[in-house]
This record gives sequence, structure tokens and C-alpha cells, in this order.
Amino acid sequence: MIETDILIIGAGPTGLFTVFEAGLLKLKCHIIDGLPQPGGQLTELYPKKPIFDIPGYPSVLAGDLVDNLMEQIKQFQPGFTLNEVADTIRKLDDGTFIVTTNKGTEHHTKAVAIAGGLGSFEPRKPIIEDIEFYEDKGVEYFVKDPELFRDKKIVIAGGGDSALDWSIFLADVASEVTLIHRRNEFRGALDSVEKVQELKHAGKIHLITPAEVVGLNGAEHLESIDIEENGAHRNIKTDYFIPLFGLTPKLGPIAHWGLEIEKNAIKVNNALDYQTNIEGIYAIGDVNTYPGKLKLILCGFHEATLMCQSVYNKLNPGKKYVLKYTTVSGIDGFDGTRKEAEKQVVKAIE
Amino acid sequence: MIETDILIIGAGPTGLFTVFEAGLLKLKCHIIDGLPQPGGQLTELYPKKPIFDIPGYPSVLAGDLVDNLMEQIKQFQPGFTLNEVADTIRKLDDGTFIVTTNKGTEHHTKAVAIAGGLGSFEPRKPIIEDIEFYEDKGVEYFVKDPELFRDKKIVIAGGGDSALDWSIFLADVASEVTLIHRRNEFRGALDSVEKVQELKHAGKIHLITPAEVVGLNGAEHLESIDIEENGAHRNIKTDYFIPLFGLTPKLGPIAHWGLEIEKNAIKVNNALDYQTNIEGIYAIGDVNTYPGKLKLILCGFHEATLMCQSVYNKLNPGKKYVLKYTTVSGIDGFDGTRKEAEKQVVKAIE
Repeated sequence: MIETDILIIGAGPTGLFTVFEAGLLKLKCHIIDGLPQPGGQLTELYPKKPIFDIPGYPSVLAGDLVDNLMEQIKQFQPGFTLNEVADTIRKLDDGTFIVTTNKGTEHHTKAVAIAGGLGSFEPRKPIIEDIEFYEDKGVEYFVKDPELFRDKKIVIAGGGDSALDWSIFLADVASEVTLIHRRNEFRGALDSVEKVQELKHAGKIHLITPAEVVGLNGAEHLESIDIEENGAHRNIKTDYFIPLFGLTPKLGPIAHWGLEIEKNAIKVNNALDYQTNIEGIYAIGDVNTYPGKLKLILCGFHEATLMCQSVYNKLNPGKKYVLKYTTVSGIDGFDGTRKEAEKQVVKAIE
Repeated sequence: MIETDILIIGAGPTGLFTVFEAGLLKLKCHIIDGLPQPGGQLTELYPKKPIFDIPGYPSVLAGDLVDNLMEQIKQFQPGFTLNEVADTIRKLDDGTFIVTTNKGTEHHTKAVAIAGGLGSFEPRKPIIEDIEFYEDKGVEYFVKDPELFRDKKIVIAGGGDSALDWSIFLADVASEVTLIHRRNEFRGALDSVEKVQELKHAGKIHLITPAEVVGLNGAEHLESIDIEENGAHRNIKTDYFIPLFGLTPKLGPIAHWGLEIEKNAIKVNNALDYQTNIEGIYAIGDVNTYPGKLKLILCGFHEATLMCQSVYNKLNPGKKYVLKYTTVSGIDGFDGTRKEAEKQVVKAIE
């Protein structure tokens, strides 16, 4: 059983920064995220895109912001349960919680901070008969481990950056890569489009456009797909079919925790501490809603901070410690490190 | 008459960032500040000290944060009225305001954002008989223009960084610099203390410790001061006396604008948009108070953002524009510049 003071659900920027403010208050954090790495959307969807509205950064790449936040929280040694989704929650008689993931990992915590962003990203699935039957038997919506496709025949479908980039990457891994798109035009970074063009001419990627996958065949495992091209049907032998039609955010299992939900977001008390209708469960960042809410990263940072102070006040009813400018107080890490402004000396002049 | 959409009072980090969020909403800002340069406390009191709790910055020098904010808001071309203090406010029948400074500069604005931090910084004055009489006649609490002291005899009093640093700087300007402190020990950066020691040995700074200034003399202008040193009194001829005993924040004239005030801070509606009890006047950053308030820069950034959205909604009742991730929308400056993520192409592969 993992023990922590604040269990954070979601490793996006708001979840990560929570570790810092909690750390200043000597509260320990653990983070659960369904993705294999921290950073949420910023890392998964647009690591190389600039963000212009982080205060104090005229421009910062999303991936760099995540790296900086990881560096900022390092000394507070957060725990991570990655590649797992928070599934069920149970409130104990003493007001603490047990949160269990879809893989059965149990976390015991004094408070829960849901920083789930727009939710967990689920793939958009094409409407093809029996596609669910072939999931994990030849149909893959993510490239989690490229080695799965080593020396295999694969078909990728889609017309955006993911389809282009994985076609390029897997051209060196798979024995045969076919890219199918329902239009002739692809939408993506110019150099990705040009690279696919080059690989097509080199015979390393087979391109079939405009075309659609309309059927899947195979007894135990996918063996071939049917495609429709210019009104005609044909069959292609393949070991894997990877439809990359984008991700769509879903609130996921959290939607069943008894929280008050409005338009796919969790209602919170913004007049005080961003607590939900269940005492001890907070929602911060894009996942919450309240009058005047804006889904901006900088708002998540503020909400995380007021939430941490509230958790501290509840766990330490006697104490009066309040978050203050770090320039004055410095920072003590859980790993024994200390950051502080250069010390002034008190010294006589003779 | 200066015309603007949002008049910001206070050029600290919260006031500066307001320009950015307002700019995204096509609202023009003008800033009033009593100090001669933007940055508030960060520039005036601790430009070389690190801040550790700006989200995404493991550490940033206060002065650098201000420089970055100035760079971030540049394309929205804010106006500045510096070295002047917002003095009176008048609400017109159409709901707009006229704000006049202590020097008579008038500003006509649709909304007012008070981002005054802890207030305007006023000098701690030593208790010496008749000191008010000599103000501007030989007694100066700030070094606004070092040239005032060119080839003059000056006495500086104090034991901190300001006293040390100005003694060092003015040793090359004034004809004679005397530094008086009531203890032998000075409290400041090590290199400042060592530099004063060096200048003392070179005969460029006269040091009198432990001692106190107890009297001021002169008919029209300061001519000499009386000091007490080890219980004995003596008189020193001087043209200027500069007591540097630190600054203390005062709310100032804003305290008389009819705003609801609690513990030297302005009460606002934190459940919606940080508006004060007067419609159209908002208070953001350290100057405001509400349940759970934390005086942190990152909170000011959030408050500024929600305030700007509220002003926009009131000024544009028909429109529905909401602040969104800048990565998606890009930014159009008032100077014709545009910042945006690298464009995707839509391109056929042949």
C-alpha cells in the first residue's frame, strides 16, 4: 500500500506544481497518471509547441515547461504510479481515502487532488465491424512499444501528425509499412510530410489514398484488412492495424465517484479552497468548474496552491503556518537540500 | 487626458501581467506607479534575490522576472505614468473613471485594477526634532538623483544594504561621505561590507559607529548635524543628511476611495472576478484580501486573468470570447506583430 499526504490524480502541469506547494508545507505527494510519463497533454500532445501565456515566459515549449516543473519539484521527491488509471475510491472512517487503480495498485492518502485536465485521453476508434474483437489481437490504438512491430507487416491509418510520425519511425522497424488516408492531403508539420514523401519514393512506405479500411479478417489474430479505394474493394495482408485518428478526453472512472459534475467538469468551491462536494477531495486545473472558470495553466497553479494551504490547515488545526514568499524563507527539500537567497552577513567594519 | 480601457495602479508583477491578459482580449492598459521604474518591490527592494515559487522556474532572480514580464507584455504597448501616485478617483455617469495623480496627471478609464502590492513604500523616518522642516532642504530619504550630491558633504545613516551601497556609490560623487550607524556591525551582502571597509581605509568614507544623529541645524537649509557617540555629543558640518532606515508599505491615498478595507488590504469578491465593493474597480495581487488569500505572485497572476475576462465581458455584453490556450490561438500584438506555433501544412503526397 502506497502511503501519502496528498494523492494527485493527473501528472499535468497543475498536478506537478502541487508537489512543490505541498512540499513547502511539508506535505508528501504521490501522483497517478494513465500516461507512461509526466506532463499530461503537454508531453503527450504538443511537447514542441510554444506556450505564450505562462507568466514570466514570453514563450516556452510545452515540453520544456514540464522539464522545468520536474526540476522545481525534484527536492520534494514525489512518488509516481504511471501507466495506471485511478479507478475506485473508498473513504475510511478516519476521513482518509484508499484509491485503487485499474491495475490494482492501492494508495492510502489523507487528501485527494484531482488534477485530471480534460480527462484521460482515449483514442477515437474507427467504426469497423468487429474492431473490438481484434483489440490486442492486431489492432492497436497507441504505439506503446515499437518493438511489438519489429519485422511485422503493419497498416497505419490517419492523416495527421501521429500517423505521419509513426509511419516514419516504424519504417525502420516493421518489415512493411502501409499508410492509408481517406484524402490525398495530409495535415502536419511540413518536414514530416516531406519525409513521408521521401520514404514513399524510396519504397519504404506504401501509400494508399484516398482510401478507407472497411473490414478486418483473421481467426485468432488479425491477418488481413479490406480497404475501399475509389469505390473498389481490395484485401491487404497485415499483422497489425494501427488507426491513429486522434485522442478524445474522457473523465473516466472518476465520473462515478459521487462528485458533482457539470459539463464534463467537477464543481468546486472557488470561494475558498477548490474542494468538491466530498470533503477531502479537491479538483484543480482544467478538470474543475466554477463561476468565471478559465481553463488556463496559470489558473491551475493558483488553485493548487490554495488547495495545499487548505489541506495543511485541516491536517494541522493548531498550527498557523501560511505560504509566504520563498525569497524570505528559502526552501528545505525532503532530500536534505536547501535553496535560499544568498545570506546577508552581520559584520563589523574596523 | 490619458485614455485607456484598464488603468492599472501598481507596476509590480501582477500589474505587469495584467497587460498581457488584457491584450489577448484586445483591451489597452495604462499603468501608474510611484516608483521611477516598473517592477514594484522586485526591482526596488530585491532585484538580485532569487524567487523559488514562480511556477516553471526552479529559481529566478526578481529583476529577471520583471524583465521577462516586460518582454512578454511589450507587444501590447502599455502606457506608463511613473514617479506619480494615484491620488483621487471620480466615477462619471457612464460608469467610467477619472483618476488623477499627486502631480495632476489625469487618466480616463473604463475599469480600474488596483495592483498596489503591499502599498506604496514610504521611508522609515528617524525621530529627530524638526526633521520635517529640513525635508527637501538637506534631508533626503531616497537617492533619486545622485547628481544632487555632486561635490557636496553628505552624511548617510543606517546599517543595511541601502546605507552600504549608497555610501559606496556616492563616495565617487560627493566631496565627503560620512556613514553613521548605531552599532558596529553592518547587515548586508558580504562584498558590500568589504567594499565599505576598503573605502574607509582609503579615506573615502568616514565611519562613525556606534553613533546616532540626534539634532539638525541650519537657518534655511541643513548646515550641520549633532551626533551622539559613546554618550558624548559632537557637531558635524554637512550639506545633506540621508537616513536610510528601510521602507514601510502604506496603502496611501487609495485608502480614501471608499473601498472596503480589512487589515490594510482591499476586500474583493474572490468567488467571481476580484471586484471590490465599487463596480468597475478591481483589486488584484497582494493588495487584496478574501477568505483563504495567500500573498503570492502566482496568485496575483490568476486574479489578474479572471479580472481581465470579467472586464471584457462587461464591456462586450454581446460577445462570447473566452481566454484560451495561446498555443492554439496565437497572439496578435497591438504593434502588428504576431506570435504563433509553427503552422501545420495541408499537403498531398505524390
